[in-house]
Order: sequence, then C-alpha cells, then structure tokens
Amino acid sequence: MNRSTVPPPVTRVLDAAQAWLPRRMAAVESRLGRLTAVGGELLAAQAGSTLAAGGKRLRPMLVLVCAGDDNAEAATSAAAAIELVHMATLVHDDVLDAAPLRRGHPTVVARAGRPVATAVGDLLFSRAFAELADGEPGSERRVALLAGASVGLARGELAQRRDEFDLRIGAERYLERCRLKTASLFECACLIGLDADSPVAPALETFGREIGLAFQLLDDVLDVAGPPERTGKARGTDLLDGTVTLPLILARELDPSLGELDLKALDAEAAVAVCDRIVATGVLDRVRADARGRVDEAKRALEGAALDQQRRELLTMVAEGVVDRYS
Amino acid sequence: MNRSTVPPPVTRVLDAAQAWLPRRMAAVESRLGRLTAVGGELLAAQAGSTLAAGGKRLRPMLVLVCAGDDNAEAATSAAAAIELVHMATLVHDDVLDAAPLRRGHPTVVARAGRPVATAVGDLLFSRAFAELADGEPGSERRVALLAGASVGLARGELAQRRDEFDLRIGAERYLERCRLKTASLFECACLIGLDADSPVAPALETFGREIGLAFQLLDDVLDVAGPPERTGKARGTDLLDGTVTLPLILARELDPSLGELDLKALDAEAAVAVCDRIVATGVLDRVRADARGRVDEAKRALEGAALDQQRRELLTMVAEGVVDRYS
Repeated sequence: MNRSTVPPPVTRVLDAAQAWLPRRMAAVESRLGRLTAVGGELLAAQAGSTLAAGGKRLRPMLVLVCAGDDNAEAATSAAAAIELVHMATLVHDDVLDAAPLRRGHPTVVARAGRPVATAVGDLLFSRAFAELADGEPGSERRVALLAGASVGLARGELAQRRDEFDLRIGAERYLERCRLKTASLFECACLIGLDADSPVAPALETFGREIGLAFQLLDDVLDVAGPPERTGKARGTDLLDGTVTLPLILARELDPSLGELDLKALDAEAAVAVCDRIVATGVLDRVRADARGRVDEAKRALEGAALDQQRRELLTMVAEGVVDRYS
Repeated sequence: MNRSTVPPPVTRVLDAAQAWLPRRMAAVESRLGRLTAVGGELLAAQAGSTLAAGGKRLRPMLVLVCAGDDNAEAATSAAAAIELVHMATLVHDDVLDAAPLRRGHPTVVARAGRPVATAVGDLLFSRAFAELADGEPGSERRVALLAGASVGLARGELAQRRDEFDLRIGAERYLERCRLKTASLFECACLIGLDADSPVAPALETFGREIGLAFQLLDDVLDVAGPPERTGKARGTDLLDGTVTLPLILARELDPSLGELDLKALDAEAAVAVCDRIVATGVLDRVRADARGRVDEAKRALEGAALDQQRRELLTMVAEGVVDRYS
C-alpha cells in the first residue's frame, strides 16, 4: 500500500498499530494484486486499474483490526475477499450510472464499455468466494457471512431502483436501504475474522452497522454539499440518478416546494441549484449530527465489549476517521 | 416442476430414474422457488418470472444424477445453487445484449430495465453462495467448485468481448471460450455432488466438459440454422452481437469472402443472408459431427468409471438428450 495516497485518519490508525497492522494491510494489498492479476489479460488491465485507483481500504482494515493478530491467514483472505466484493459493486454501480470517473480515474465502463465492465464485476465477485473457500478452518462461516452481505448489497441496489425518482419515500425506508446497501458489508467486515462463538461478536456487529450507516449518511451529505474538487464528483449526482437521500427527505419538510420537484427533468445545473436549496434549509447539520450520534453509538458498543485495549483504540480511531474525513 | 413443459429427453431421464430423480428434481424446483421468492418484492417478481420461464434444468439434473441418491440435502442445495448461477449469467447476458426475449418470455432487462436486471443477477449470484454455505459436510469444497466455475464463466464472457467482431480468431480460441463460458459449469455440476475423494470424479469431469462443449457447439449451429420458431430467437443473433463461432470460422476457410465481412455493419436481414452462406458451405454437418464426437467421448468416459448401472444409464441418456434436442 502506497502510504502517501492514504487519507490521514487511516495513516493514524496504521501508525497507532505499530508493526502488525501495516504489515498485514500490505499483505492484503499484495493478495488483492495477485487475485486481480490472474485470469486473462482483460481482467488484469481492468481490475488492476480499479485496484490501483485505490480507495480507503476501510473494510479490509476493519476485518484485520476486529480479527486481531490471530488467524492471520484467514483474516488476510477474508479482508481481500470483502474488498473484491466492494470493488465488484463499484464496477457494477458505475455501469448502471454510466459514470465516467471514480476517485478521479476513468471507470472500467468508461474505458472498456458495459459488457466488459459487467463481466469484470462478475469476475471480481466470483474470485471473492473462490478466495474464501481456502481450506482454513471456519471457511464455511466466512462464505456464509460474505454471501449474506452480498445478498444485502444487491437487495439494497434493488430497493434504490424501486424508490428512484420517488419524492414520497421517508426516512425509515431510506435507512433500510442504507442498512442493506452499505452497513451490511461493514457489519460483515467486523464479524468475518472472528471465531464463530466470539463473545465480542454482538458488540462488533453493532459497531459495524452504525459506522456503516454513518459513512453512508455523510456520503449523502457530501453529494449535496461538495465541494466537487474534494469528492471527485459533481454536486447533485444522486439527484440526477433519482436517488432520494436523507438531506432531501428532511429538507422537503421545511421547504415543501422541494417535494414537488420533477427529478427526472433535472439537468446538472438545476441539480446544483436544488442542492443549494437543501443547504439553505439547514438540514445538513442535522444529518451530520445523526451520523455523529451513530459513531458515538458504535464507540459505546465497544466500551461494553471484552476487547483488548489495542483493538478498542484502533476501532475508536477508525470510527472517528469516518467522521473526520467529512468534517 | 411442471412436467408438461419439460422437453422430451429430460422426461425420458426422469421416467427412467423411476421414483427418486423426479422427487429430487421437484425438491430442487421448490428450493429454487423459495430462494428467489424472498428478498424484496422486486426480486420476487423478476426472478420469479425468470424461474417460471423454465429452461431445461440440465445442470441441476446432472448434479443429482452424478451425486446419486446419497447426500440428498447437500446435492439438492448444490443443484439449486448451480441453477441460480446459471440464471444470474442469463440475466446479465440479456442486459449486455439488450435482449427482449428469452425462451419466448420477456427478459428481466426488457421488463425492468438495466439497473434492476444487473442487481437481480447479482442477487441470484449471492444467493447461490449463501445456499452452498449451508452447514452440510463438504460445504467448503462445493463453494470452491462453484466459485471456480463462476470465475470461468466471467472469464469466458470477457474472452468473448475481447474477440468480438474479430473474424481472424481460430477454432482453438473459440473452443477455449466455450470451455470457460459453458463447459466449466457443466463440469462443476458433475463434480459438486461427489465426495472429495470420489474415484469417479475424473471420469465425470471429462463427461461434464465434453457434453458442455457439445451443448455449446450445437447451440452455435442452431443460431445459424434456426428455425427461429424452435430456437425462440432470430437466426444470426450471434453475428449481430459480434460473436464469431465455429460455423463461421470453418465456413470462412471454404468461402474466403466470408472472412472479409464487416460484422459491425450487419443488420438483421444481412445476418440471415450470412447464415445462408454459412449453411451453403456445408460446415454445419462438420460442427454437428464434432459435437456428436464429444458426446461419444463423454459416454466412453463413463464406461471406464466405477459407476452403478443406473447412474451410467441416466448419464448416457442425458448425454444423448443434448444431441437429440438439436437433431
């Protein structure tokens, strides 16, 4: 992992863990490189660049920190598998949104077209499960956890399509979507490196779910607030895709005219103007506060759990990193 | 399973197996119904109709026949999982080809659009692995086999895209693509219900590979020969998609002007005319003979294996059914 490209909070977590975590993250990175390098030149080119485009590697880090320094081989392989599933969903999302850029790099669909990008996503997905069926003890439980999370991701995507362009959806339905689309993989990351009967599992499940939800809430704030030069995408991208998120749901109550928008008729400029109207209602602070409340809940879950001091500190830092990145 | 919609060779196999196979196929069918009914109304609607559209259920039948009447629960679940992966690839293929119909029914992409269809495919895929991680002994081996086959399917799709519209590709590259795209799931179906150290595994692997290849070769003949009212799709669909198959590869040697076609410029009518020119070279009989040779090789593999008489007979019937359907 190229440390210079890693956002500061992650670097802090790596530093705090002294030797073992950076060494293990590097092992995950090289595993990811190996898993995406084999299997035909097209995959190597496409997935290799998706991999190189980086990303925060937040999910693999959660796997390693929650697993601690035991079961190293199983945790490395689970961390890589979770990132492969995450990458697969990004590649497919970009196909659906016909997105030209992700993290400032051209997407697979932009470079190679829809058919190749769909197949690359399927391949990353398949490789994830092949990697988990690795003969280490407890492999079956890990497959079940990742498959369950993947079902959640796909159901979340379906829910998003069901709800698209529908301004009447409420906060509860929005949160259910976030739980499926985002929190399920965070939860899975926190559980997959544990033993089946680990006493810390319930606390880490709550931790994963709440920081996953906080992560998504803040992502949705960023889509409205920008700035584009930091997020790497135009403000109002969700609106243009017909994705109604919590900022708009709350703003609509304060400014009912927002509830009468025709989202399908928006162009990029009009979407930015809607973002400005959402900002003007002041709801973004409420959404940020909701996210911070969830991070606090995640940290409280750690307090009650029989975790060693180092893991508790590292997880607290990861949780704070989720908020920091957006502050 | 609605017996009246099952093609005759499959019915013959079911009859031949007397009681156990029809009962077990019905169990697979109801498992498939259950697995696609949960998970949000959209999936139930979309996957339910994909399921109802039927298909030959050739892969689940191979799982059950190869497994025999032991390990019933594991084999049922593996049979359902393989069919889910097969359905997932069909749903994604239809997205890529923007196909309006499959087996005479509207496709998921035609009914619900690309985003929903992509997510439905991902969901079917995830459910397959969730189903395999079922706690039965040997679950991990089954996950590894299905994940390996799924990697093959995606690599085959990528290879097809790499080769598309390229009239210079040869028979060897075509066969490699068929091995990945089709034979890998047939092979997996033959192995997934066996014990890890089963002495019949090598023979059944050969059997699965060869009938998978025969199946694909004959499918590619049908695309050229039709008739559309039997195949449910227009002649020359592969040509329009830029997929160069063995009939064209062989015909090009006899009629070099076929090697100078601009496939990208073909319309539906011109594609049918190209099909007529391929038929005129007489190569379809050579491709059919190649397929029959592979079915014979599949049957020879059975002869040398320590299979009980009933399994050998059933597998022979399945192999002949692959040829029969297209005779």
